[in-house]
Amino acid sequence: MDLERSVRDVLDREAVTALVHDYCLLFDENRPRDVAELFTVDAVVDYGPESDTIVGRDAIGATIAVGLARTFAATSHHVSNVQVVLEGDGRARSTCYLYAWHRYVDGSPDGELWGRYRHRFVRTDDAGWRIAELRLEAAGTVDFHRARMHPVGRRPASA
Amino acid sequence: MDLERSVRDVLDREAVTALVHDYCLLFDENRPRDVAELFTVDAVVDYGPESDTIVGRDAIGATIAVGLARTFAATSHHVSNVQVVLEGDGRARSTCYLYAWHRYVDGSPDGELWGRYRHRFVRTDDAGWRIAELRLEAAGTVDFHRARMHPVGRRPASA
Amino acid sequence: MDLERSVRDVLDREAVTALVHDYCLLFDENRPRDVAELFTVDAVVDYGPESDTIVGRDAIGATIAVGLARTFAATSHHVSNVQVVLEGDGRARSTCYLYAWHRYVDGSPDGELWGRYRHRFVRTDDAGWRIAELRLEAAGTVDFHRARMHPVGRRPASA
Repeated sequence: MDLERSVRDVLDREAVTALVHDYCLLFDENRPRDVAELFTVDAVVDYGPESDTIVGRDAIGATIAVGLARTFAATSHHVSNVQVVLEGDGRARSTCYLYAWHRYVDGSPDGELWGRYRHRFVRTDDAGWRIAELRLEAAGTVDFHRARMHPVGRRPASA
Repeated sequence: MDLERSVRDVLDREAVTALVHDYCLLFDENRPRDVAELFTVDAVVDYGPESDTIVGRDAIGATIAVGLARTFAATSHHVSNVQVVLEGDGRARSTCYLYAWHRYVDGSPDGELWGRYRHRFVRTDDAGWRIAELRLEAAGTVDFHRARMHPVGRRPASA
Repeated sequence: MDLERSVRDVLDREAVTALVHDYCLLFDENRPRDVAELFTVDAVVDYGPESDTIVGRDAIGATIAVGLARTFAATSHHVSNVQVVLEGDGRARSTCYLYAWHRYVDGSPDGELWGRYRHRFVRTDDAGWRIAELRLEAAGTVDFHRARMHPVGRRPASA
């Protein structure tokens, strides 16, 4: 066993997982500018087929700010089942599960989503690990503010 | 501190936790044969008192395939509170929490389960850590497709 | 990299996280005396503005015992998004997400809470890491047995 390499890998997995947790916490605290700081300058976010893919840290912050101001009275993003793959050379990917609860400004019934985040991460020279890509996929939703979502990739039942 | 032993233990806890996450992901993607590969050849799965205990990797794959084909339109298995105990000699146990959401093929209301998985793991010579035993326990359910489940072992209120 | 220090830090983060998991498991198993043992003798627990702050391990055990005996028929405390900050000198803090499900003795509809635990930990000479402080905050609740909770600190929408 290469002890130092193994420990570095454990710390890297902890670091990118912490970014996912920071994203949830800052989003749920309605701090869109701080959420944006977790991303690389040229990061790409894809929340689903009903909304345009967001490109760039500034656009990410601005888009999230609109949703937080107009749509949500409260949100809670519970992530689990975090699986990180270190790809070497300062790159990593992860898949995690998301159970998200939303209370709406307009008084609609609380919306729930069961799904996944797919993340890609890059270690930057100046700020360490940052999120380079985020894609949201849904296994299912109830009373959710979006009708169509990227699917989680479940095989058809007949397969 | 025995540094190398400590690091090996951290990696072993990560490895068996990854098996639990793989189980959820592959189940939710409707890939019963790939789920079965996570188990030892002679593994034992106990989903509760209403279904027979399943013995052997092939039977596990076949049983899960039936449920995935007939019962579920979508599922999402969110595990957390993972506690691993390394027992030495290539053996480990874990308890984790499960919040599982199910959408049914027949249009019944979505079913939810709050409970636990109890896992036993074995490190095999050819394929590394594998699941040797899985037991599902429920703290409670709502609109679930099974009426009776193994309980989580809560003491009676008067205790 | 100070290898030994890094590994000690990983093990410390695992140890305090395990305390949070133990708290959930023992609470959900209706074992209030065992829950109390996870805390320091002079620990402080704040479940919200409707209940007095609880001071001391014995009072924590007694208060939890009353709730478990009178209010809950079953509970399930799912924690995730665990973020630990080691402060040095045997002290640590953490924030984690909580999704808690409750079934009531009186037959009221199941109660749900989406929120956070804020923990402070101390490493004791005789028993290792223990919980020194616990504060519960809610992003939202449905059919919950308490009307008012400490908020999670979400900024107002106009901020």
